[in-house]
Amino acid sequence: MNKPLVNPEIGQQIRDWRPYYEAKLGFRNHWYPVMYSADLAEGEVKPGKLLGEDLLVRRSGGTVYCIKDQCLHRGVPLSRKVECYGKDTITCWYHGWTYQWADGKLCDILTDPSSKMIGTRSLKTYPVQEAKGMVFVFMGDLVGDSAPPPLATDLPPGFLDPDRAAYGIRRLVKANWRLGAENGFDTTHIFIHKDSPFITGRDSALPLGFASAGTLQLDLREDPAASRGVVDVMAQHYRPLFEATLDGQTVLRTRAPTGKHNTIHTISLWMPGILSVENHPEADMVQYEFYTPHDADHHMYYQVIEKSGVTDAAQEAAFRAECESLHEPLALRGINDDDLWAREAMQGFYADDWGWLEEQLFEQDRNLLEWRRLASRCQRGIQTLAHVQGGA
Amino acid sequence: MNKPLVNPEIGQQIRDWRPYYEAKLGFRNHWYPVMYSADLAEGEVKPGKLLGEDLLVRRSGGTVYCIKDQCLHRGVPLSRKVECYGKDTITCWYHGWTYQWADGKLCDILTDPSSKMIGTRSLKTYPVQEAKGMVFVFMGDLVGDSAPPPLATDLPPGFLDPDRAAYGIRRLVKANWRLGAENGFDTTHIFIHKDSPFITGRDSALPLGFASAGTLQLDLREDPAASRGVVDVMAQHYRPLFEATLDGQTVLRTRAPTGKHNTIHTISLWMPGILSVENHPEADMVQYEFYTPHDADHHMYYQVIEKSGVTDAAQEAAFRAECESLHEPLALRGINDDDLWAREAMQGFYADDWGWLEEQLFEQDRNLLEWRRLASRCQRGIQTLAHVQGGA
Amino acid sequence: MNKPLVNPEIGQQIRDWRPYYEAKLGFRNHWYPVMYSADLAEGEVKPGKLLGEDLLVRRSGGTVYCIKDQCLHRGVPLSRKVECYGKDTITCWYHGWTYQWADGKLCDILTDPSSKMIGTRSLKTYPVQEAKGMVFVFMGDLVGDSAPPPLATDLPPGFLDPDRAAYGIRRLVKANWRLGAENGFDTTHIFIHKDSPFITGRDSALPLGFASAGTLQLDLREDPAASRGVVDVMAQHYRPLFEATLDGQTVLRTRAPTGKHNTIHTISLWMPGILSVENHPEADMVQYEFYTPHDADHHMYYQVIEKSGVTDAAQEAAFRAECESLHEPLALRGINDDDLWAREAMQGFYADDWGWLEEQLFEQDRNLLEWRRLASRCQRGIQTLAHVQGGA
Repeated sequence: MNKPLVNPEIGQQIRDWRPYYEAKLGFRNHWYPVMYSADLAEGEVKPGKLLGEDLLVRRSGGTVYCIKDQCLHRGVPLSRKVECYGKDTITCWYHGWTYQWADGKLCDILTDPSSKMIGTRSLKTYPVQEAKGMVFVFMGDLVGDSAPPPLATDLPPGFLDPDRAAYGIRRLVKANWRLGAENGFDTTHIFIHKDSPFITGRDSALPLGFASAGTLQLDLREDPAASRGVVDVMAQHYRPLFEATLDGQTVLRTRAPTGKHNTIHTISLWMPGILSVENHPEADMVQYEFYTPHDADHHMYYQVIEKSGVTDAAQEAAFRAECESLHEPLALRGINDDDLWAREAMQGFYADDWGWLEEQLFEQDRNLLEWRRLASRCQRGIQTLAHVQGGA
Repeated sequence: MNKPLVNPEIGQQIRDWRPYYEAKLGFRNHWYPVMYSADLAEGEVKPGKLLGEDLLVRRSGGTVYCIKDQCLHRGVPLSRKVECYGKDTITCWYHGWTYQWADGKLCDILTDPSSKMIGTRSLKTYPVQEAKGMVFVFMGDLVGDSAPPPLATDLPPGFLDPDRAAYGIRRLVKANWRLGAENGFDTTHIFIHKDSPFITGRDSALPLGFASAGTLQLDLREDPAASRGVVDVMAQHYRPLFEATLDGQTVLRTRAPTGKHNTIHTISLWMPGILSVENHPEADMVQYEFYTPHDADHHMYYQVIEKSGVTDAAQEAAFRAECESLHEPLALRGINDDDLWAREAMQGFYADDWGWLEEQLFEQDRNLLEWRRLASRCQRGIQTLAHVQGGA
Repeated sequence: MNKPLVNPEIGQQIRDWRPYYEAKLGFRNHWYPVMYSADLAEGEVKPGKLLGEDLLVRRSGGTVYCIKDQCLHRGVPLSRKVECYGKDTITCWYHGWTYQWADGKLCDILTDPSSKMIGTRSLKTYPVQEAKGMVFVFMGDLVGDSAPPPLATDLPPGFLDPDRAAYGIRRLVKANWRLGAENGFDTTHIFIHKDSPFITGRDSALPLGFASAGTLQLDLREDPAASRGVVDVMAQHYRPLFEATLDGQTVLRTRAPTGKHNTIHTISLWMPGILSVENHPEADMVQYEFYTPHDADHHMYYQVIEKSGVTDAAQEAAFRAECESLHEPLALRGINDDDLWAREAMQGFYADDWGWLEEQLFEQDRNLLEWRRLASRCQRGIQTLAHVQGGA
């Protein structure tokens, strides 16, 4: 069949998280964000890409639809020249093959209305749901009339709470999605943020690292009917470091907390690849990071800040203004821009799969290993090249 | 040996046109245009590329010669720095190996005139013939003194008629040559031309599509001593569509013919990949399109308009002026520029060979299937990577 | 394991120089220049690349150290953001893993000073030696306390002579290192220099080629305790050509020597890939050329002119001024710039390894064959992809 997506010889040497190793293009049968709702006006058609598959999304009559961006006939992208002659259909610019947005059915062929193929086949469609200003797509294979699992099972707990306002940005990062997720959940990667304007630009504190203090206690959530993830209540077992020494000499020192800012957050990583950082960038906020598989070498990085207790439009406008003026420049960009190049710096080592064998993890990486194992147990399928190219 | 040019596993699933599938670099032992005669002045040396092979062409004493552009010694391109010290030879810039244009024989080595290799080996040469302002090369392997098949067997019938004037342009297209040929012969691809300035800019008509009307009758020409191809007399079995409807509503309407312009042409596709469109762009003209294999991902697209009954220089000049002012901007570019991006849009689906299995052809594509089968039966050989790299 | 670096099927057809064929990334366990001493000031850290491996070099306390530029932990390049908090160590910017420059030992982890991994593993280090203004690295694997072979065994004889002054430049060339070495040692490649400003710009002479005159006598040096190489005393068996004829007509003529300039030099090629051209660019000078493997498709080309009898600073300054004003523009660039594009022109033919079978060598290439055989006998190991990616 197809050339394998990952080196199978390496996979044989990975015991308890082989599905995670194989999921270079992500896990199938999960919900993923494809764009922000605000970027898709009524009637608009926009391309998207998830797990290596090219998609086309349309908002029509208030509902958002998602189809595979590839005509059944000769495989061309419908997005190359979008032709919608009604609100329910899209017509391929090449030979007039016309599909229904709702179910993908080939409902007409404009160049040959008598073709016997009409009505007999369908373009792949994917379920869509909108929430918190994001358009989510279920990248999976439903049998018969079965419904996809609830969107909430593929989001961190609380993400959908009705009293929360959300503010988000996104960008494409040149690193596999797993390197994005591991960079975020990795506790000691905080070392790279020591020069961040988030610390230097205002009265805040961020440790240089987190030394172990006691036994690692991770909370594994695996109920298939709920969010599944690894929760690390860092305060229980990490000691923040504000100084670093070499040969007894202090070589680095960072601002210690003044009490105003909490330096130890609870962090958690949820299926199918979403980080939650509590009390960040402010005490009453949570920062979420979606590491969405784009292709084998890129992930789309969605960063969303949520604030609780936002119940009216004035509060929401104030939150939005605060994000635009403060949290986006200092946190979403100020801090996280460092993470982008860190992930890209890892990509070379892992690109040909050998890094997964050659890496040498240390004590502080145990939460990453737990994540790999949990993800391998809880995943609902593995995206393959056959899904991308057809033939699956 | 070499890495295979196409995925053999896919080839095993293709029954009656496997040679066509394998001919990603084109068919060997056929004639192909390498440039226009006007682009090669007396004495000039110019590089060319056919079927993945780098060539060097020279006009000397009125005759055109063609050699492989690769020194036998260390494999360097002679074209990197052309050194011709006489009208009959070319000398490699690197070590002075000197070849005869006529037969490729290594006739001297300037850095060592006593070398025993002189006279004992030859660079690959290819027969050349000029016709209708084009330089044709026979990309094949002749045994002993055998002559190549007549040029006319690799051209559409009538192309060489003495009373015809020809006007042509060419460009390189980022799509395999077969996608070029199939785009041209494909009857319903006409749907992409509905916005073309060819229609909107003057009093002409072009249907939106061609619905079947009766049984498909194709004329298959397979006499090995003549032109071999598939002729589709479209008027016999297609009904032109000037309106398209969806759910009973007319969604598209194009100008219907006024009688001045014929909208149904006879189209035919000839070995080794040349389209003929009769009565186009005017009733007394034929448009030919050569989809010449350049490499696996590109074809050189030669577009030639011929007009009959041109017997003196004044008529030829008038025809040329008409082409320059009208047919080139409105037909060769106005219409066919759409075809370029259509072919390039198909390339992604077919590039790794899987598209040939995954495509879903419909009734109107039967002429393409007949073409694939006829080409598989009539081809004289398949170009391989060994021909390109040496070792064949 | 890894994908093989070279096509093994081709290797099976090469009898007496297979190791040379396999050494696409160079020979291991040899000394190679990584930069010029002048480009590394006290305290500076600079990246380098040899045999496909990314390296990091530092001068500290007058000593130069070399480590592999890849953190053991997650494989990131340390060079992406250099952090040295003391003169003896380098700290990874990502998680604070800290290594000793001298032995590579993981001596601390700033984000977790209590990690049990500290002291238990080491980054790969390579021995360094400076000589004649160049920083040499021993790209090899030493067992226990064993010392590398003397630097002099990987340099041409005389190169280290104390009374010699050296002047050098370097550039990266888009050709495998073996094509660089063979271009330099190849006697008849001199044909490409016929238009060089080295001849046309001053009163000097350079033949068009060297015809055989008598039996080829090559001096093979294979004492493992000394420099190993092939010495070609060209005056013994080559006759310089100042005219070229075709069909009895003189087609090329170049300036013959006036007596001032010697046109026949002794040339030699030494392990692991260093050319020596005696009496060039002046009678009392030697030009050395290092074809240092960079990656499979590039070599770093170091060109060094040495002059004997330079014993004080004034003489050295005069030599330097002469090189800057005369020899660098006319010889190192004027002549050798032609060699750069000649090597790059060969690269396409050899890039996929087939060129090593398809090439057709002639009498004048016997010194190249001797070099391939000697290199195959004298090499101390072959660089593999596993050395580059880890896992070796």
